[in-house]
Amino acid sequence: MTTPLWDKGQTDIDRELMAFTAGEDVILDRQLFGYDIQASIAHVRGLGRIDLLSAEEADALTRALQDLAVAFKEGDFQLDERFEDGHSAIEFYLTEKLGELGKKVHSGRSRNDQVLVAQRLFLRDALGRVAEKSRAIAGVALERADQMRHAPMPGYTHLQRAVPSSVGMWFAGFAEAFIDNAELARATAHWLNANPLGTAAGYGVNLPLDRQGVGEELGFARMQINPIYTQNSRGKFELQALMALLQALLDLRRLAWDLSLFTTEEFAFVDLPDAYTTGSSIMPNKRNPDVVELLRASTSPAIGAINELLSLLSLPSGYHRDLQNTKGPVLRTLSRGITALGLTAPLLQALSFDEQRLKDAITGPMFATDRAVELTTTGVPFRDAYRQVGAELDQLNTRTPAQSLQSRTSPGGCADLRLDELQRRLEKLA
Amino acid sequence: MTTPLWDKGQTDIDRELMAFTAGEDVILDRQLFGYDIQASIAHVRGLGRIDLLSAEEADALTRALQDLAVAFKEGDFQLDERFEDGHSAIEFYLTEKLGELGKKVHSGRSRNDQVLVAQRLFLRDALGRVAEKSRAIAGVALERADQMRHAPMPGYTHLQRAVPSSVGMWFAGFAEAFIDNAELARATAHWLNANPLGTAAGYGVNLPLDRQGVGEELGFARMQINPIYTQNSRGKFELQALMALLQALLDLRRLAWDLSLFTTEEFAFVDLPDAYTTGSSIMPNKRNPDVVELLRASTSPAIGAINELLSLLSLPSGYHRDLQNTKGPVLRTLSRGITALGLTAPLLQALSFDEQRLKDAITGPMFATDRAVELTTTGVPFRDAYRQVGAELDQLNTRTPAQSLQSRTSPGGCADLRLDELQRRLEKLA
Amino acid sequence: MTTPLWDKGQTDIDRELMAFTAGEDVILDRQLFGYDIQASIAHVRGLGRIDLLSAEEADALTRALQDLAVAFKEGDFQLDERFEDGHSAIEFYLTEKLGELGKKVHSGRSRNDQVLVAQRLFLRDALGRVAEKSRAIAGVALERADQMRHAPMPGYTHLQRAVPSSVGMWFAGFAEAFIDNAELARATAHWLNANPLGTAAGYGVNLPLDRQGVGEELGFARMQINPIYTQNSRGKFELQALMALLQALLDLRRLAWDLSLFTTEEFAFVDLPDAYTTGSSIMPNKRNPDVVELLRASTSPAIGAINELLSLLSLPSGYHRDLQNTKGPVLRTLSRGITALGLTAPLLQALSFDEQRLKDAITGPMFATDRAVELTTTGVPFRDAYRQVGAELDQLNTRTPAQSLQSRTSPGGCADLRLDELQRRLEKLA
Amino acid sequence: MTTPLWDKGQTDIDRELMAFTAGEDVILDRQLFGYDIQASIAHVRGLGRIDLLSAEEADALTRALQDLAVAFKEGDFQLDERFEDGHSAIEFYLTEKLGELGKKVHSGRSRNDQVLVAQRLFLRDALGRVAEKSRAIAGVALERADQMRHAPMPGYTHLQRAVPSSVGMWFAGFAEAFIDNAELARATAHWLNANPLGTAAGYGVNLPLDRQGVGEELGFARMQINPIYTQNSRGKFELQALMALLQALLDLRRLAWDLSLFTTEEFAFVDLPDAYTTGSSIMPNKRNPDVVELLRASTSPAIGAINELLSLLSLPSGYHRDLQNTKGPVLRTLSRGITALGLTAPLLQALSFDEQRLKDAITGPMFATDRAVELTTTGVPFRDAYRQVGAELDQLNTRTPAQSLQSRTSPGGCADLRLDELQRRLEKLA
Repeated sequence: MTTPLWDKGQTDIDRELMAFTAGEDVILDRQLFGYDIQASIAHVRGLGRIDLLSAEEADALTRALQDLAVAFKEGDFQLDERFEDGHSAIEFYLTEKLGELGKKVHSGRSRNDQVLVAQRLFLRDALGRVAEKSRAIAGVALERADQMRHAPMPGYTHLQRAVPSSVGMWFAGFAEAFIDNAELARATAHWLNANPLGTAAGYGVNLPLDRQGVGEELGFARMQINPIYTQNSRGKFELQALMALLQALLDLRRLAWDLSLFTTEEFAFVDLPDAYTTGSSIMPNKRNPDVVELLRASTSPAIGAINELLSLLSLPSGYHRDLQNTKGPVLRTLSRGITALGLTAPLLQALSFDEQRLKDAITGPMFATDRAVELTTTGVPFRDAYRQVGAELDQLNTRTPAQSLQSRTSPGGCADLRLDELQRRLEKLA
Repeated sequence: MTTPLWDKGQTDIDRELMAFTAGEDVILDRQLFGYDIQASIAHVRGLGRIDLLSAEEADALTRALQDLAVAFKEGDFQLDERFEDGHSAIEFYLTEKLGELGKKVHSGRSRNDQVLVAQRLFLRDALGRVAEKSRAIAGVALERADQMRHAPMPGYTHLQRAVPSSVGMWFAGFAEAFIDNAELARATAHWLNANPLGTAAGYGVNLPLDRQGVGEELGFARMQINPIYTQNSRGKFELQALMALLQALLDLRRLAWDLSLFTTEEFAFVDLPDAYTTGSSIMPNKRNPDVVELLRASTSPAIGAINELLSLLSLPSGYHRDLQNTKGPVLRTLSRGITALGLTAPLLQALSFDEQRLKDAITGPMFATDRAVELTTTGVPFRDAYRQVGAELDQLNTRTPAQSLQSRTSPGGCADLRLDELQRRLEKLA
Repeated sequence: MTTPLWDKGQTDIDRELMAFTAGEDVILDRQLFGYDIQASIAHVRGLGRIDLLSAEEADALTRALQDLAVAFKEGDFQLDERFEDGHSAIEFYLTEKLGELGKKVHSGRSRNDQVLVAQRLFLRDALGRVAEKSRAIAGVALERADQMRHAPMPGYTHLQRAVPSSVGMWFAGFAEAFIDNAELARATAHWLNANPLGTAAGYGVNLPLDRQGVGEELGFARMQINPIYTQNSRGKFELQALMALLQALLDLRRLAWDLSLFTTEEFAFVDLPDAYTTGSSIMPNKRNPDVVELLRASTSPAIGAINELLSLLSLPSGYHRDLQNTKGPVLRTLSRGITALGLTAPLLQALSFDEQRLKDAITGPMFATDRAVELTTTGVPFRDAYRQVGAELDQLNTRTPAQSLQSRTSPGGCADLRLDELQRRLEKLA
Repeated sequence: MTTPLWDKGQTDIDRELMAFTAGEDVILDRQLFGYDIQASIAHVRGLGRIDLLSAEEADALTRALQDLAVAFKEGDFQLDERFEDGHSAIEFYLTEKLGELGKKVHSGRSRNDQVLVAQRLFLRDALGRVAEKSRAIAGVALERADQMRHAPMPGYTHLQRAVPSSVGMWFAGFAEAFIDNAELARATAHWLNANPLGTAAGYGVNLPLDRQGVGEELGFARMQINPIYTQNSRGKFELQALMALLQALLDLRRLAWDLSLFTTEEFAFVDLPDAYTTGSSIMPNKRNPDVVELLRASTSPAIGAINELLSLLSLPSGYHRDLQNTKGPVLRTLSRGITALGLTAPLLQALSFDEQRLKDAITGPMFATDRAVELTTTGVPFRDAYRQVGAELDQLNTRTPAQSLQSRTSPGGCADLRLDELQRRLEKLA
């Protein structure tokens, strides 16, 4: 551990407290380190533009930071317990390389806006990956919907067989869900794409910082203007990013639920490839859909993290050390959630359906609604048609699932899935 | 209670179960009833366009529905326990007025898409109100920031006095927060502004419904295409609407926390008008900031409701009765939250600040950062300047808060609050 | 609305704020009113014992309070919006009946400890009902386990058929769960059974109150001694009571999940009586297990309420108005949850099982574990037995479910359900 | 990675899926490994008693397991990514040491009941530590309450100065809180102290296992009888253990909130030792109460973990892989929470109070309630006394805090803190 930045020498710090306050910060910072360096480069260049650094100084610091980025990426620089956190590690590296000059990287900024900007860049990228994985899922789902558009499948309500549906409609449903999720992730990334750097510890600083230029260099769409708000927004933007992730994971949970049922012996609609199943330690007869269950369980850490954040944020204005604890749940949860989303497109690709069993599961009474609706087109009020058909359920066996599917012409229905429209929305999000 | 729609006469229903399944549905539906009627009119007209109703039938149903809307609004039609829910009440009214024709309103739709469209319209309007109240808060905060831009106020970190700040910066911070909140509410309303009507019970219907036309009449930006997804999205869009509300309430919680501290005898920065305080039942000496505390507490029902929804949504595809229980938390929480936001702008307007006390609270050592930064502009590395100033804290008394405020020229800082930029963003959201 | 207790006449209170601060307090207080009166009687008697009231005064107040309790119970006294809350209503009634004397009921107590004691009594009773309903469920489950001890049922892991089990074991499992839940409710009631009355607004009072005697009269097991802690415990005990309820509701959720699956056409193990099912508004062929789904959904309000409370409790010591908002979620959730638990025992009673289908669902490979374990008793290591049996899965068809059930002699297993032991634990909780 | 137990050789497992399904299991198992070995020893001995192992076999396995426990404790055996999880590591070690015999440890049990028993032992110990840390906090708080019983301190409601109180009462309040928390942790440990081992994969096994004897050897108070329930209780007992921890952390959050306020310049009641404060990276004038803030933030991971668990538990009966994900939040949260509780007693010990400032903060109007109560003892109804004193607030300056404290004789009040009673309750919990 290097000497902490704030140590004025007078304190003999108890080790246990030290461990408690440091927490797992430096380990977590591995996910932020690249962003921290990137923002430090922009900051140094900005200091150059307002003559707080000479051109030579700014260049030297920039080059050293670029070297550090490479060294970190290639494993030549380890971010570990030697350092209090990633910020200290940067200063340590620069000072080692450049002597006194290295210390100047900290001019005009605080650890507060330094961590804010690194996390903001991380969130923006993470949301980009949520959008990308969601688009991939939607893409595969659209392909499979097209392939399976004529394969009948029972449509359930209350888990009871209700009306004929199709595997195509089931896939198309998840396609549209993940298009919406991709759009949400993108809108959320846009909403939070504002530059916090240059607000110091939440009250600005007595320097005419070039916040506009620094923000543009980092690709921010706008400046987060007010320093108090910038500080107060710690956790706020993180929360909304987690929500965008959670929306995708909630649809994944539902998808996994469907597959969990469809792979039972009782439903037996779907077969999973071996790579997605696991054996039992005690039962030689079992192949279990563990991956599907773990995907279903992937929603839970996001729900936990959102609540962890919410309970941290009941505070007055200004930085409080409590806020440091937003880092762990945010970094961990986004990583895990993105991994789960990444496994979903290949899973959809790999699903194999037992079409005969699906067709056999569509029994006579399931045509009742079709029949009742037909009666309404001859002028019978729906309520009366409903009663009439209810009394004749055993006379519906002459229909076939294929006929039912072809008749369902309401937009989005089995005869009109509108995959092209969905494809166009998906392409717009690319 | 009218006979339930699904009663085929053969069942003697136990009263207790009836009460349990009905829940508080019909009471909650009062908030949805106007939207349900509005969507029913669009649905009826759509049925007319595909000749499922004659022009005369569609007109008669439309007029009767318009009459019902007026009767409900003026209190001449009571939505109460006589009905199972709002949907039954509409059919009951139409049948009473129009006989057999009344029953035709239900052609081509299910209670599933009927409730979905009513809730969707409700959510869209509620988000509009969240945006409107947020804009109002931001507007007042900007005005007050302008008035108080020169009033010093201690800037706190860790609740410790840190650096000089201003009342203007504090107000401007909440202005920017609520601009972001208004933008989020608007983006969320846009995201969910898709028409679910015409998807029946989640599998479409064997009728060429004019979903496009019906959606346009209801002001939807697009069609929610897939019926399975439409059904599965119940709760999903509600959740995101609650999150948009929650973001505004989280900033309100922070604002209320600040005021809770600022109104203590120890801080004594702010005076609340009498209308915002309450006496004690046992202590004659007390005036308590109850309204501020209740505004702070307004966040909690939203947190509860979000978790209630999340725990309801762990289900396979298709409608399940569990989903009906999303209605209560969503309707109640949005109403309560919007009320709390509505009380906030007048509160900000009414706050009175003790400027002398605020100024006196800015003590010498708080100028240390200014001094250290000044040293850096002469070439001293920040870390060294930091140590040097740390040793001279008692020599900083000669500075004044006003000087410090004027020197803080970083964009967004006290000398450059950028209220005009914030005002322009606010106006774009109008 | 009567004049608020704290109105010193100088304030012109804005109506909207008034509505916001009053909230739904007086409506909620209907659930607490009986307890408030009960505690007021004990308080008055205690004041008599320390001579703050004469014997005649104490008797007169006691009688009037007893009259009020009867009048409220019989509907002759309405607790409605005329009153700010239940506490005001009591004082109003006493003053109307007894003039000046009526005002003395408030001597030596504050609304703070008044509401604390009423809620504590409510919690204790509510936990008693949670325990009672849990015991009833366990009792029925034990009966049914005994009836169905020889009925085979597939045992699932990962929703995959795993090993033979029995309906009896399934029922016995829920019996033991609800015995644990009853025990938890009872232990929780004991933990919080401490008297808060006599702590005033959180700092005691300059009167030698007979807190011991008052507590005993109200059936408390001990005194909650410290006034600051007593005030701070508002929400704390409520939370633990909600957790005890939640544990029972979590098991109910699992039970409802099982029944939701068992009543699908695919499993078709269980038939629900008509009273527990509902028709569809659009599908004449459907009978839906709505009650089971609503029981499953009953867990969610408790999860919401716990989070609502948790987010309210991030406060410094002492009363804050935020805490008033603990009342709604606590009262509503306990009532709803107890209702759901109350419907569960009759549901278990009414379930009818298709024993042939259950038996047919037990296929050859499910005997693999039995066979592997048998091999281990001859000295084959389990891992080797496992591999050997895995290669012979198609040779296991000669076994019967009945044989398998009889062989499962591990304590708690199908051949040794230990219903007597469970019955004895249940009886100890009565 | 050793070959997974369930690998029958036919599967080529995709590495990415492998990583996803393994998760961080083996790392987490380091906390469970000792318990897993302990339970394995009891299991082996039980197998010996039913002659499934010979005496020599049982002894050999027992000795090897004891060796492994020592090797793990002393760092000679590393539990790392070589193994799928701790269970595999045990079997690997035994097989390496004892050849074929090593494989027999798995006879008659499944990984399901193996992990259940290890987690149950962990929970029991963790709750013991929660109780122990809570008792330590209560002990220190009682000592300090005794020391500071005559030191006046303002009593606040709504964060407004209300009535005179004392530092002693403040400490005594936290003492009683943590006595209750210790009692809750102990009661929870008792509630869940039931042996799950011997239930196999949730349906028992065809062996007459000596579950009673194994449970007694492991110190369980009773057998968890039903195998289905035992499996279903995974997560249930974990949840209740987290709640017991959370209750202690909620009181810690409140304590930390108080200290966060008391250490502001505005209150300035309390001075923290240097070891509990941290400097600022940008402000040379700051010493921040970081430890207090991090203790306050310690509640949040528990809130997150509880919600993570709750959302995992919406499942039908039987094991599902989702349940494996209960492990992480439970192990991590209990460890972190216990650490935070462990830092609290020394913090209380180290607090130094500014008694003069505390006394000065008690201003005249704060005696109003005392005066009003005195008037009631002369027969004035409290409501009238309240109004009378409200008009004379400026005449109360002649009183002293010491007089007020001495007069507050209600049990638990400043003149009668009842530290002895609290001490006796604390000692009973030892």
